[in-house]
Amino acid sequence: MLLTVVELVGVVAFAASGALVGVAKRLDFFGVCLIGVFTAIGGGVLRDVLLGITPPASLNTWKYFVTALLTSVLVFFAHAAAQRLRRGILVLDAVGMGLFASSGAAIALDAGASSQAAMLIGATTAIGGGVLRDILVNEMPLLLHRDLYAIPALVGSTVVVGCAALGSAPATGLVVGTVSASLLRLVALWRGWNLPGPRHVDG
Amino acid sequence: MLLTVVELVGVVAFAASGALVGVAKRLDFFGVCLIGVFTAIGGGVLRDVLLGITPPASLNTWKYFVTALLTSVLVFFAHAAAQRLRRGILVLDAVGMGLFASSGAAIALDAGASSQAAMLIGATTAIGGGVLRDILVNEMPLLLHRDLYAIPALVGSTVVVGCAALGSAPATGLVVGTVSASLLRLVALWRGWNLPGPRHVDG
Amino acid sequence: MLLTVVELVGVVAFAASGALVGVAKRLDFFGVCLIGVFTAIGGGVLRDVLLGITPPASLNTWKYFVTALLTSVLVFFAHAAAQRLRRGILVLDAVGMGLFASSGAAIALDAGASSQAAMLIGATTAIGGGVLRDILVNEMPLLLHRDLYAIPALVGSTVVVGCAALGSAPATGLVVGTVSASLLRLVALWRGWNLPGPRHVDG
Repeated sequence: MLLTVVELVGVVAFAASGALVGVAKRLDFFGVCLIGVFTAIGGGVLRDVLLGITPPASLNTWKYFVTALLTSVLVFFAHAAAQRLRRGILVLDAVGMGLFASSGAAIALDAGASSQAAMLIGATTAIGGGVLRDILVNEMPLLLHRDLYAIPALVGSTVVVGCAALGSAPATGLVVGTVSASLLRLVALWRGWNLPGPRHVDG
Repeated sequence: MLLTVVELVGVVAFAASGALVGVAKRLDFFGVCLIGVFTAIGGGVLRDVLLGITPPASLNTWKYFVTALLTSVLVFFAHAAAQRLRRGILVLDAVGMGLFASSGAAIALDAGASSQAAMLIGATTAIGGGVLRDILVNEMPLLLHRDLYAIPALVGSTVVVGCAALGSAPATGLVVGTVSASLLRLVALWRGWNLPGPRHVDG
Repeated sequence: MLLTVVELVGVVAFAASGALVGVAKRLDFFGVCLIGVFTAIGGGVLRDVLLGITPPASLNTWKYFVTALLTSVLVFFAHAAAQRLRRGILVLDAVGMGLFASSGAAIALDAGASSQAAMLIGATTAIGGGVLRDILVNEMPLLLHRDLYAIPALVGSTVVVGCAALGSAPATGLVVGTVSASLLRLVALWRGWNLPGPRHVDG
């Protein structure tokens, strides 16, 4: 129950980030909704396809799709307010990212994936929606060149796999994984951490 | 039989639209063929992957691939004529879109998908090829910002799911779904319907 | 054993080509690693998703991922040297492409795919990583407009399917397929073969 609430918070944050990008690109009503929905459920769809869970859970039940759609509609009509909430959305996005990485890893382990597959698929769940969003609006994915985003996601899924290997209860892994991934992301945002680029590029 | 003919008409229209984009981007012979084929069979491959039908039907039999390839070759060598037929291709494309949305929803129901999954996967079948085409030539997908395309597709798949829920024969759903989606798309093209963009964007 | 070695050579070449593109785009450390890894294992992941092999083999075991990651790290820190080795990397890439096309077709046949599906999925395995690389850095895929790349890949997978149909040992098909695809690619590179573009484009 709490898990569902946190998951839907993540969906809201991801949909809002996608819809805001759509507004900035001056898409029409439907384009904004489409990109909000793709951003919110893209990672989960990718996870389920990689695990052979078909049809993907986020298509098979309404709650994710409807939550993502309502959020996108709201952002379209109230994007000025949404812009002012951008910092809040970034915090929610960090929480959603941490949860998707952790729950993605847990779902992968349940589906019989190896430890390494669970780590990689968990991280993919968390970053998939944002990468899809950036590809759709024809931008280079932010996490390739500006955002410390994939490493926190990998930390979250790794913590879940580690907890499972140590025999702790699944809930423990989920909580510890989500908190560590989200905190790392928030600290990176707050301190403006970036990784160095290559030196002396002359090509 | 009639279904196969209509499906192949859809494949021809989708391949022609893809190949014409390739010609406009001045791709070479093989690039034009590749993008024509991807546009024509991309939606069906995506549908089958989402439903766990592997290998995807459009890869497993020749007819779709060969039809798409021959169409692309023809467009490459006769693109001036194809340009003049652009209005005709748009009409065929609307018919193909309606059919792919409807048959995609019917195939999803057959594969055990829920009503909502069948609606969403049907629409995805219809829009998938065009989105892939635009991503490959490095453009923002048309349906995000200019085309009323995804709503007709969703209408078509929803009609099929509704007919199935009401217990009508599958063929009825297919026909009604295809006709309503294609008509809506054609009216939108004819009247130049566009959805409004966000107001007062200043970011 | 030899197969594994050749496969890892292919992974190294693909990862290096991806990481070099990342360096040229001035991505940070993590972006370079991410694009190197995606380029190296993207084709194999796509192959397994199309065949219903989940989780994909390249996520389920460490060797591909770690090899791709180490290669990308090396290219990031020694990209000047990697640039000078670019011709060598192109040769390795041709070998990797030939092998991925051939082993992709063999794996598809093993998984029960039809001859045509095995040909198309084999070629997809070989070109998938490069297409993903180009989409991620927001470029039109090279093989659409400059590179004779997909035809050699299709030749390799077709040779494997043909050998299997003739009843020869799987190893024979793999060797002949890899050699013919790689040689054709190398000759195309050496002679600067390009396919003609459409004539008289005025749109």
